[in-house]
This record gives sequence, C-alpha cells and structure tokens, in this order.
Amino acid sequence: MSRKPIGLILCGLGRMGLIHLDNIIHNPNVELLYLVESNLDHANDVLTKNNLNNVTVVHCDESEKAFSDPLVEGVIICTPTDKHEPYLKLALKTGKHILCEKPIAIGLDTVMSCYREAKDKGLVLLCAFNRRFDPQLYKMREQRHTVGPIHSIKICSRDSPRPTIDYLKISGGIFHDCLIHDLDMLRWIVEEDPVTVYTTAHTFDPEIKALDDYDTVFVVLKFPCGVIAHIDVSRHCVFGYDQTVQIYGKKGNIISDNPLKSGLLRNGGAERDEIFYSFPTRYAAAYQEELKHFVDLIKGTSSVSRVKPSDTLRATYLCEAVEESCRTGKVIHVPSFFQNSFKGKTDDPLLNE
Amino acid sequence: MSRKPIGLILCGLGRMGLIHLDNIIHNPNVELLYLVESNLDHANDVLTKNNLNNVTVVHCDESEKAFSDPLVEGVIICTPTDKHEPYLKLALKTGKHILCEKPIAIGLDTVMSCYREAKDKGLVLLCAFNRRFDPQLYKMREQRHTVGPIHSIKICSRDSPRPTIDYLKISGGIFHDCLIHDLDMLRWIVEEDPVTVYTTAHTFDPEIKALDDYDTVFVVLKFPCGVIAHIDVSRHCVFGYDQTVQIYGKKGNIISDNPLKSGLLRNGGAERDEIFYSFPTRYAAAYQEELKHFVDLIKGTSSVSRVKPSDTLRATYLCEAVEESCRTGKVIHVPSFFQNSFKGKTDDPLLNE
Amino acid sequence: MSRKPIGLILCGLGRMGLIHLDNIIHNPNVELLYLVESNLDHANDVLTKNNLNNVTVVHCDESEKAFSDPLVEGVIICTPTDKHEPYLKLALKTGKHILCEKPIAIGLDTVMSCYREAKDKGLVLLCAFNRRFDPQLYKMREQRHTVGPIHSIKICSRDSPRPTIDYLKISGGIFHDCLIHDLDMLRWIVEEDPVTVYTTAHTFDPEIKALDDYDTVFVVLKFPCGVIAHIDVSRHCVFGYDQTVQIYGKKGNIISDNPLKSGLLRNGGAERDEIFYSFPTRYAAAYQEELKHFVDLIKGTSSVSRVKPSDTLRATYLCEAVEESCRTGKVIHVPSFFQNSFKGKTDDPLLNE
Amino acid sequence: MSRKPIGLILCGLGRMGLIHLDNIIHNPNVELLYLVESNLDHANDVLTKNNLNNVTVVHCDESEKAFSDPLVEGVIICTPTDKHEPYLKLALKTGKHILCEKPIAIGLDTVMSCYREAKDKGLVLLCAFNRRFDPQLYKMREQRHTVGPIHSIKICSRDSPRPTIDYLKISGGIFHDCLIHDLDMLRWIVEEDPVTVYTTAHTFDPEIKALDDYDTVFVVLKFPCGVIAHIDVSRHCVFGYDQTVQIYGKKGNIISDNPLKSGLLRNGGAERDEIFYSFPTRYAAAYQEELKHFVDLIKGTSSVSRVKPSDTLRATYLCEAVEESCRTGKVIHVPSFFQNSFKGKTDDPLLNE
Repeated sequence: MSRKPIGLILCGLGRMGLIHLDNIIHNPNVELLYLVESNLDHANDVLTKNNLNNVTVVHCDESEKAFSDPLVEGVIICTPTDKHEPYLKLALKTGKHILCEKPIAIGLDTVMSCYREAKDKGLVLLCAFNRRFDPQLYKMREQRHTVGPIHSIKICSRDSPRPTIDYLKISGGIFHDCLIHDLDMLRWIVEEDPVTVYTTAHTFDPEIKALDDYDTVFVVLKFPCGVIAHIDVSRHCVFGYDQTVQIYGKKGNIISDNPLKSGLLRNGGAERDEIFYSFPTRYAAAYQEELKHFVDLIKGTSSVSRVKPSDTLRATYLCEAVEESCRTGKVIHVPSFFQNSFKGKTDDPLLNE
Repeated sequence: MSRKPIGLILCGLGRMGLIHLDNIIHNPNVELLYLVESNLDHANDVLTKNNLNNVTVVHCDESEKAFSDPLVEGVIICTPTDKHEPYLKLALKTGKHILCEKPIAIGLDTVMSCYREAKDKGLVLLCAFNRRFDPQLYKMREQRHTVGPIHSIKICSRDSPRPTIDYLKISGGIFHDCLIHDLDMLRWIVEEDPVTVYTTAHTFDPEIKALDDYDTVFVVLKFPCGVIAHIDVSRHCVFGYDQTVQIYGKKGNIISDNPLKSGLLRNGGAERDEIFYSFPTRYAAAYQEELKHFVDLIKGTSSVSRVKPSDTLRATYLCEAVEESCRTGKVIHVPSFFQNSFKGKTDDPLLNE
Repeated sequence: MSRKPIGLILCGLGRMGLIHLDNIIHNPNVELLYLVESNLDHANDVLTKNNLNNVTVVHCDESEKAFSDPLVEGVIICTPTDKHEPYLKLALKTGKHILCEKPIAIGLDTVMSCYREAKDKGLVLLCAFNRRFDPQLYKMREQRHTVGPIHSIKICSRDSPRPTIDYLKISGGIFHDCLIHDLDMLRWIVEEDPVTVYTTAHTFDPEIKALDDYDTVFVVLKFPCGVIAHIDVSRHCVFGYDQTVQIYGKKGNIISDNPLKSGLLRNGGAERDEIFYSFPTRYAAAYQEELKHFVDLIKGTSSVSRVKPSDTLRATYLCEAVEESCRTGKVIHVPSFFQNSFKGKTDDPLLNE
Repeated sequence: MSRKPIGLILCGLGRMGLIHLDNIIHNPNVELLYLVESNLDHANDVLTKNNLNNVTVVHCDESEKAFSDPLVEGVIICTPTDKHEPYLKLALKTGKHILCEKPIAIGLDTVMSCYREAKDKGLVLLCAFNRRFDPQLYKMREQRHTVGPIHSIKICSRDSPRPTIDYLKISGGIFHDCLIHDLDMLRWIVEEDPVTVYTTAHTFDPEIKALDDYDTVFVVLKFPCGVIAHIDVSRHCVFGYDQTVQIYGKKGNIISDNPLKSGLLRNGGAERDEIFYSFPTRYAAAYQEELKHFVDLIKGTSSVSRVKPSDTLRATYLCEAVEESCRTGKVIHVPSFFQNSFKGKTDDPLLNE
C-alpha cells in the first residue's frame, strides 16, 4: 500500500542546509513543510528560486510553531553545532524523527541522553556520518573481505578549499571537524576499536596557527586483530578534495581512489579530468543516500540504522584519544582511555548498540 | 514568480518509458498525470511500486481521455516507433508539447509535417537525441575549439548487451537504431554536413544475419572544412557499453572516454572498476537533462531547442546515405544525395532551421 | 659453445643510424667494425664521443673497403632510401647478412630480386618493420586470440614532431613513409590480405600541401574473414607520438595504449606523465629487439624471420592500393589490384613466403 | 680522449650478482675480468650461457688472485652481508674502487672505518641505495619543489614475493632489509634528519613470527621543517612489488605511482596491465644507472657521489631508532638517540659529508 510523503522541517540553511534542501526537492518520498532560519530574507529567496510555494518559513525564535504541527514527522538539523541541542530537545519532546549533522551535540552526556530518549520514544536519531552513505565507499566496504583478512588501511582525507577563518573558529578544530569522519570509517571497516593511537601534527598556515589549531595531522592506530591504520588529514589541498582509502589484505588490495569529474581526457590520454573540488560535489550521492536511509528508517523499510548510537559515541571518544596523543606527544592506550571516559557510563548498553 | 509543476502524459512504459518515469518522479517541475499503456497490469504495478497515487492509467485505445485534459501541458512519447504517429498527431491537435524518442516518425514527410504543425501552433517538439544532453559529451563539445581547428573525429559506439531478436526485428536496423546517434553527434560537433560517405559492414552473428541486418559497421565521412571522421558501430561488446569520442585538432586532442562505474581500484591500481553495462546507466544523466530541457522550452526559460528540426531531418537523410553506401559498396556524394532526397522540399526553411 | 661477436658495418649515421649505433654498443653479441658515411667529420665525432676506437670510418665512395673485409658478417643499411640499392647489392655480392630500413629499395622488382638472391645465397635479409619488434605490440598480438574471433581493428598512428620539409621531400609521401607500418601491422595481426580498401585524406598544412602530399589520412579495409579495420594516420600531433591499436573480438577487446614516460602523477592522480615524444623513445625497445633478431637469424638460433619476403612485398603492394584509392576517390578491390601488380610474378613463390 | 673499459671483479653471483652481471655485459664502459664465487659450477655455467670467454672464475677462498691483478680497477660486492667485510678490506688494501650492496658492513664502526680509508686513498666507495638511481624516483625528487614547500610524504614499500625463510633468516630483519631504503629516500627528499620517530608493527605470517621478525610496519616521522612522513612496509603483496611515494606541498602533490608492465588495456580500458612482480624488474633501470654512476665516479666525470658516507651512516642510525621505537612502543626523540649513537664519533666529519 502506498503512503503520503513524509513531512519535514529543515533547521538551518547554510552550506549543509542547501545540500539537504536540494535532496528533499528531488526525493518524492519527502515533502518540506517548514524551514527554520534566523535569516528570513535568505530563506524566502531560496524558496522562491526553487519554486517552493507550500513551505512555511519560521524564524528560529519561533521554531515551536513548526514542531507543533502534527503533519511534521521528521527534522533535519544542520545549524551550527552549538545550536543543535535546542532543536534536538524540541524534536524529542514533540515526537519527531531526527537526522542531525555531526557532532550531534557538544558534550557526550547530552549526546547519550538524546539517544536514550529517542530510543525510549521509538524515534529515529540518525547522525549524518556521510562516508557510510557514499556509494563508492560503501561498495569498497562491502568488498573488504575479498582481499582476505585485512592487514592494513590507509586513509587520505585532505580538505578543499581551506575553510574561512570564521568557519575554522567554530569548527571544533581539525580533529572534531575532519578526522572524526575517518575514525568512524575505520571503525566501520575494521569493526573494532583500536588498542593504541599515536598522533603527530603540524601547522603550516599562520592563520590556523593563530587559532591554535593544526592543518596537517598524521595518525597511526593499531587494532586488536593486528590491523594497522594510518590517517592523513590536512587543510591544504589546492587541486581538490583528496579523499582516498586503501585496504590491504592477505590476498590483495582494494582502493577507493578519487573519482574524476568526467571521463574526458587530453593529450593522448595523459591528462585526465580533475578530481572534485569539495565535499558537496564529491559526496553528492552520499547525501542523497543519507536522506533515503532516514526515510527508510521512518517508514520501517530499514530496521537497522546504518549509524548506531555506539558508533557516534565511540568515534567521539576515540577522537579525543587522538587529540590527547597530539597534545602530549605520547602513544595513547585506548582501552584505558575509554575506561576512564566511560567511567560511570560503562554499563550503559547504548555504548555497545 | 513561481509556477505549478507541468502536467504530463507518458505514452509507453517499456525500457525507455521506465527511464522517463523515474526522471519525472525526481524532477520537482513536472507532475505525471496520465500513463498511456497497452498493458494495464504492468502500468498499475509500476505506479503502485512507485507510490504514484495520483496518476491515471489509460489504455492506449482510449488515449484521447488523457489528451483532452486541459491540465496536461506536455507528452512524452516512448512507444515502439510505429506507434509514434497517432500520439504525435493527437498531441499536436490538442495543443500539447512533445518530447519524442527518435525517430520521431517513419517517413520524413511525416516528420517534416509534424515539425511544421508544431511550429505553426507554437508547440515544443523535441526529438530525444540523448548524446546532446550527456554532460560529458556536452562538456567535450563545449571545449572542442581548445584543440584548435578540428582535423579529425573518431567515434566508437558499441552496443551492450546485444538486444533480443524481438527488439532487433522492430529496431529499424543498425543504421537507424544506433548509427543515427553518431551521425547526429558528428553534425553537432562539426556544424556541417559531410561531402562524402563510405560505409563497410559485416555480420558475424547468424541470428542478425537471418534478419538481413549488420552487427559491425565502419563509416568514414569527409566534411567540406576538411575534417575526416570515422564511426565504429557494433552490436558486440561483452564488457559493457563502449562509447568513446576522440577529437583531434591542430593543438591537441580531447577524448570522451568511457566513464567507470566507480573510482575503486584493485591490485595496486592495475585493475579499475568496469565501464557501464548499457545505455540506461551510461546515459542516466543525459535523460535527466533531456527532461529538464523539455521543461525549460515549455516554460520559455530556454528559447532555442538543443535539437532543431533540421538536425532530425538531416541526420535521417544522412543515415540513408550511409545505408546506401553500405548497400552499393560505393562512396556516396552527399550533396547530390541530399539534393535528390530534398527534391520538392529544398525550399522548406525547416531543413535549415 | 661460445662464439665471437658478429662483425658489422653500419651504413648511414642519420637519425636511424644513431639509434642502431647505440644498440650495437650495448649489445655484447655484435661488434661494429666499419662505419660508412658521407660526412666523415660527423662520423669521427660520434665515434670519439662513444669511445669507439676500433671502428674504421669509410667514406661512402670507398665502401668496398669495408665490405671486402672477411671479418664482417653483417650490414645495417639506414641511409636515405635512394642509397639503399648499391649497399644491398654489394652486401649480397660479398656475402653479408643485411638488416635494412624500410623500404628495402625503390621498385618492387629490385626488392624481389634482392630477396631472391639473398635466399639463393643463404643470407639473411631482414626488413626493419619496427612495430613487429615492439614488446608491447608483440604481446598484444600474442594475446589477440584471447578476445575470441576478431571482429575489428582500429589503428592510430600519428607522427610527432612534424618532420622537416627537407625530410618530407625525400620521405616517399605519407603512405610509404608512415602508413606502410600500419598496413604491415594489420597483415601481421589478421594474417590475411584485405579484399577492399577505401582511403580519404586531407592536407591542412600549407607546406605539405605545396609538396602535393597529405597530412591526414583515414583508411578502411575489409578482410575475407569479415574483419573490418581502420587506420588513422596524421602528421599533426603536438602532444607526442600517438600510437595505439585496438582489437575487438567476440569475447572482448585488447588495446595497445600509449605508454607514458613514467608513473609520475600530479593533482591527486588526475594528471599523468606525458606520452613519448617521437619514435626513437616510443620504439626504443623495438629497435633493440630488431637487432637481437638479426643476430639470432645470423647465428641460427632463430630459423624463421619475423619479417618474411612476402610481408615486405605485399605490404608495399597494399600501400599502393591505398594510395590509388586516395587518388581516385574510389573503393579498390584488392585481389584484382594485386593480380594486376603481380602480373608475370604471381608464380614467384617469394610472394607467399 | 677515449679510454679502455674499466676492468671489474664481481663478488657473488646470487640474485643481485646476476643483475649486476647483466648490466656489466650491456655496458660498453666496463669489462668483467674476474668472478669470485663459492660455487664454481654455477659461475662457469652462467659465464658459458652469456658467452663470456675472457672472464676468470676464482673461488672465494682465492680471491686475492683477482684483487692482485693491476688491470682490475673496481669491485662490485654482492655477497651475503656477512661476507662483505673481507672483500671491502681487500679492495681497500689493493686500491680498487668499490660498489657495495647495502648494508656496506655489519657494525657502524666498520662502515665508518671503510669510508675513512677509501677517502684517504682516493677510492670510490658507493653504497647501492637503488631508489636514488631509479629514473622515476629521481625525476620525482628533481621536481619536488614544484609542489611548493613540502608538507608531508607518504611511502608505500611492499615486498613481493615474500622471500624464502632461508633468506629472511639472514636478511637482517624487515627494518634493515627493507625499511632502510625508505628512510634513505626520505632523507634524500627532505634533506634533514627527523626529530621524532614512531613505529608500530605486526606479524601476520606464522613463519615470520617464528623468526621474531615483523611483516607489517608503519612508521611516522616528523622533521624539523614541519614535514610529517609515513612509511608503510610489508612482506605481503600478492599482486606485485607495490612501491609508491607521494609528496604533498603547499601548491599540490606529486606521486610516484607503480609503473605498469605495459600500456596494454582490456575491457574498454577498465583493465590495465599488471604492476611489476619484484625488484629486479621494477628497479631494472635503477641498477643500470647505479653502475653508470660508479663508472662516472671512477672516470671522474662525476665528482660528487650520489650516496655520501653520511647518507649511509645516518640512514643506518635512523633505522635503529625506528627499530627501538617498535621494540619499546614509544616515540623516539631522534636528536638525543643520535647523540648517543654518535658518542665519541660526533666530531668525525664523515657523519656530515
């Protein structure tokens, strides 16, 4: 039997909000009902340009108007991180399903309590770890066992273009802004938490130096099964958004190389087209899949979330271990770091769900 | 100012019909109102599966019901070729814009009279030459002058999988089914009609031989500006839908190579992912662009059709010259062949529009 | 049992002569005894630079001095084509084995009589069709049956850099200078002579036009087994020496693509290293293999020449059929063209050896 | 003025000895006079097969016979490592130039005293760090500044095939057998010694485990200039000898990718030829260049050795720091490690030469 499109609120119309808006428009299974924004002119402009007559714009101070509408079933939260919490709470209170940009909230206690409440109320709370939804990375992961038992993994994750200083100030730093995606991806592939982590970093860009942040980070992790992993994260990549993964195993390797903009060649094949410039183009399909998965979870056609509470929680703890290694210059023993971080929460089953 | 989605009829729910249906669903600027089909069960199944409650299924014998609805603005015709004509006429009579699969109709006189009527009534009549809408081929054509004056062009256009014999019987033969796309593409790139054409062909497949059709065709064309072109068309291509174009000029070359399914690599980079299997995946983006262009022409946001009447007419005449060369084993002098074909129509301005 | 190096004469120290000289120096199985040149200063300079103290320079007018030395076993002839004949005759008279650049001589009667004399005297006469010795092309040909029965072949053979006008004047024209290599390669792969040939050509370069030669040639050939082939020959290729071959068969294809100068990449892999600039670098290994094969034939470690008399003779006749098609603008029926050309010679077994 | 070929002794006819022998044969500037081997039958067989009549085979117990010949100018030492020292000493005593496989000797004191003696006697002592002579890596290094100031370097160096257990027993372990090449390459590119080193490793292969050696090693190094480097070394690589280097800088990157065996493609370009199987084929050109450089140093046409004493010494010390980090699981501070290792030698100018 068929079903009406799912009514949605979109909170935030920045860089990520525009990506979500476009995917909502082209997905026949959802319908945008409300747009919650602080900048009403911007919101109205975008709606007009997209011929969206039936969407109500609500100022962020009056967001309850939107959340109280019983036609709304789900919310997509993509405001700046420090504004996530009020929308999360409102959504949970009014019984709306949630797709939320990472990090879900500041403070792991908040994240954990949101997950617990969502679970108790039977609501979807999906953290938008985009890599898991990228068709190419997904296919690579599906095929990971074709290389036999995995021996090592190398991730390259170089940002392009360098974000503005305004963004970098509120980014949470290179570890929580960028590296957390790669840590999540590693956990997703290896299906374990590492035992040791070592991080070394440098800052070449004086503007980033002034923020006391890093622009060049190398991390090495060792897992209980013997797998060794390396992550190369950087804010410098003038030629495009350089995102590769290499998995080596006993029987060979599989590489997720940079897809190219097109199959155009020049000079007898020597020159190929460029790699994608940034995340909106490189991960365009991932964002579409993310929304489809959100719909499937709401409709019940998927019963298992592709990002579990423990994925979000553990990736975040791991990110802090990585940061600690960088700060101290020492190798971090993850199990004892986790034990410490989980103190008083270690018996919460969410940490393993 | 905004605008309601354009109401559409879709005629035919075969291979191409399903592609158009999917693109209609994901395009917020159009709304499917009617589906005209001979197989009602199939039509209803597809609608249910796609959650399309508001679409009315109409049997092909009762298609006037759909065409008489004033909410309908456009029609997409993708029935077998021999069924195009009645829908075309009905659409023109009832004042609907038309997107029609190639060939628009059997008989150039019919095609020409349809174009003339559409023109007189201010209706869009867009022939679906998909190559012109493919983003990669479009980008290549846009950049054609970066290689300096063009010297030569080589097109490879190998079909995959080999169509069924049932399809081949009604396909119109390899020249009108396949090669016409490449002739259209050549005219689009060179912006001239050739002066000579030479064709040689062979049939390796006994089933195709039994139909008196060819499976392997090479064509060489020379243009007034000096450009020499080669087309390689084949029904045999076990590894996928092999579609490449090479443009050589004084200052270099530009190649539209086969895009790969993904950027996954194996064995240290030696093994890449496969090329696309067939036209629905290889030209997926082209079909979406085609529909967008149809919408733009209806809304008037595009004022010039990317496929003009003369493009359809002249590509078809040229296709007959190619076939004639194959049949006679001789070099065909195109201007005199055209003069003959255009006899009595040469003063019709549509031939140059 | 071991054997002393084979004593050689090198006739001509132009572009090809320098390539052969370098290969002689690095091949421990041959020893250069004489260098026959018209420009003695040039010859002496080159010998000094290469530390070749034991080589005697002989002016071309006194070449008999070199040929009468019983220590000499073989001759490499790479003078301008019109100077081949006297050295060939001298070599045959004095009983020396011969490696000769193509074309062996002007006039097929001369070529045939040289082959006949060589055969009667048990001497090697090897025509330097370099493609047959290129390791990559050789490997492709060895694997040609892995694609199943062959359906079609496409050759690209674009020259770089454009030769000087002085060279073009004595080159014999694009057909005999360039295209003959591709005709030979086709015959080597298909192992048949074609039944029809069609050629169309153009001249974009005014300097080449002034010589009444072509710079852009497309040829289509059909073979008795059904194979259709296309050759693209051009004097224009600013980005390098573009030499590719594609073989398509029932079960797939095999492509000899342009090898790149190195495995260096830039810009995340988008930019690869260049293709080779010209024949001395692209076919460097081929020239080395050619010399090794010459040695093997002399020593008897190879008993069958990789270029048979009929290969040279038939490729040359075929080249004339190609030229005839271009001149007349007509399709040439090869068997009757050959019958005519072979008139009075058709019973000579060399034509089939 | 010209010069006779340089007379050489080759010590050892194992895997590396056969590579050097082949390069000697094809290099016209050297002449093999003696072959020093323990297995005389093997030595004689190889000479016969290569038609080398003028080479004297000497049993290793009687090597002085060869070294006392004044016609000998140079020695190539490629015996097992524990046999290097006697030949080195003999060569220095008898005044012969030396090309020696790495490591020059066991014990840094021995290495240093050999270098000192060679220097005092004006003899060449060239350590065969093959990467420095590979044309592709050399070109990459030459172009390293085109990426702007370097930010990071990633090296992949995976061995193929897995050596025999017999070899692994005498290999010196993965650090001194494999990783030292990559450490040398890093120093060659960055032109600094690192400040910190961190190593983590694992052993998947039970046979290697039984030798108390590792098969999978990741190293991260930080340099004073801010550059961060990663090295991936492994004994597992079933698809070939996987050797890549990536240099990232402010303005882009340059990658030394695995060169492929040929430019042959299959399946519409999706499938490329394989990478090289092992070091003799991957670094074939490097070994030739190494020998040419040895000749140039002897003849004086090169005045600066491409591998200086300090390169050998410092790479070896660094290798020990890497090993120490692996053993202790701790980050090693290189300057203090060096200071310790150099104790009593820090004023020796060789350490900086």
